[in-house]
Amino acid sequence: MKFVCLDMEGVLTPEIWKQVARATGIEKLAMTTRDVADYDELMRMRLHILESEGLGIAVLQDAVAELGVLPGAVEFVEWVRGRCQFAVISDTFYDIAAPLLRQLGSPTLFCNRLEVAPDGRITGYSIRQSQQKLQVIRALQGLNYPVLAAGDSHNDLGMLQQADIGCWFRPPEDIAQEYAQFEVLDGFDELRARIEAWMAA
Amino acid sequence: MKFVCLDMEGVLTPEIWKQVARATGIEKLAMTTRDVADYDELMRMRLHILESEGLGIAVLQDAVAELGVLPGAVEFVEWVRGRCQFAVISDTFYDIAAPLLRQLGSPTLFCNRLEVAPDGRITGYSIRQSQQKLQVIRALQGLNYPVLAAGDSHNDLGMLQQADIGCWFRPPEDIAQEYAQFEVLDGFDELRARIEAWMAA
Repeated sequence: MKFVCLDMEGVLTPEIWKQVARATGIEKLAMTTRDVADYDELMRMRLHILESEGLGIAVLQDAVAELGVLPGAVEFVEWVRGRCQFAVISDTFYDIAAPLLRQLGSPTLFCNRLEVAPDGRITGYSIRQSQQKLQVIRALQGLNYPVLAAGDSHNDLGMLQQADIGCWFRPPEDIAQEYAQFEVLDGFDELRARIEAWMAA
Repeated sequence: MKFVCLDMEGVLTPEIWKQVARATGIEKLAMTTRDVADYDELMRMRLHILESEGLGIAVLQDAVAELGVLPGAVEFVEWVRGRCQFAVISDTFYDIAAPLLRQLGSPTLFCNRLEVAPDGRITGYSIRQSQQKLQVIRALQGLNYPVLAAGDSHNDLGMLQQADIGCWFRPPEDIAQEYAQFEVLDGFDELRARIEAWMAA
């Protein structure tokens, strides 16, 4: 038995913060780890903007309620669960990701938590552990599962390096060029074919 | 975020081998880890019987096709996935458990594999690692998740001891008495209440 692990935003769902940026008209909120590689720096910027605009958890939840998952994601998750074990590994937050995961049939999700005050203000965020994406892959390998991982951004790099098979999934061109050791997959059909080849190997 | 981990047979589904025993009329196949604490000894006995009776994987797959999951299991799994992360940890085999897991909405399953020859003979089985139930709990804790685990039999003991909260779920009376340090839960309502108390703590 093998494990397939996927990043969430940009792979299975649209980018949540881009939707928050559209909804609030605050352009800087559209930046992702594709733009700022240091996740902590990115998150501190995001939360600082929300705080200074007087925006709380509701604006994130509303944004997520607007988003569906990406075309083909539901069918892919159903397919992959019939072939092997599957988990989503994301730097997003359980507090806002839940409705999207439900649309995917509630696969296991490894991610982080926001710290939210009773009045809805986001007071901070809690990273479960440093390099959590890489650590999940390592833990599954420690349980004797070979792992194929795919993601689209800088924050997936450790996970792709640690996995038995690491692939880019629709990455920005510059990232794919900089880390050309990882195969580039252009959508769920290519990901499905890659998994089938790996399962048969 | 917390993880709930459950044993499969006797908790979410009926015992597969009891059904195999009924279907084949071979009484000895009804023994489980409740009867023989050493899983390896039990499995060698089971496979020896199948071999000597000329029975292969089909008899196991037919037995599973007859079984549904236990009453309340589907609703419980749906409920628990809305509250926390969830995984099934079982000493069963992916090769036969798949249809039961699908009925539960395909939660993550940690278990083992049978070795099956092209003609359907079961030539052996492959334990993913020794003490795999305990190891899964330890791996999740290493990822900074607190874990509540519940099971009904000797082979769950390591998992219950390792978990932050370990509970018996409808155990045989002698096991519950011998390991009275673990709370006994008598069904999904009690398990639900225990999880809610733990989530609130």
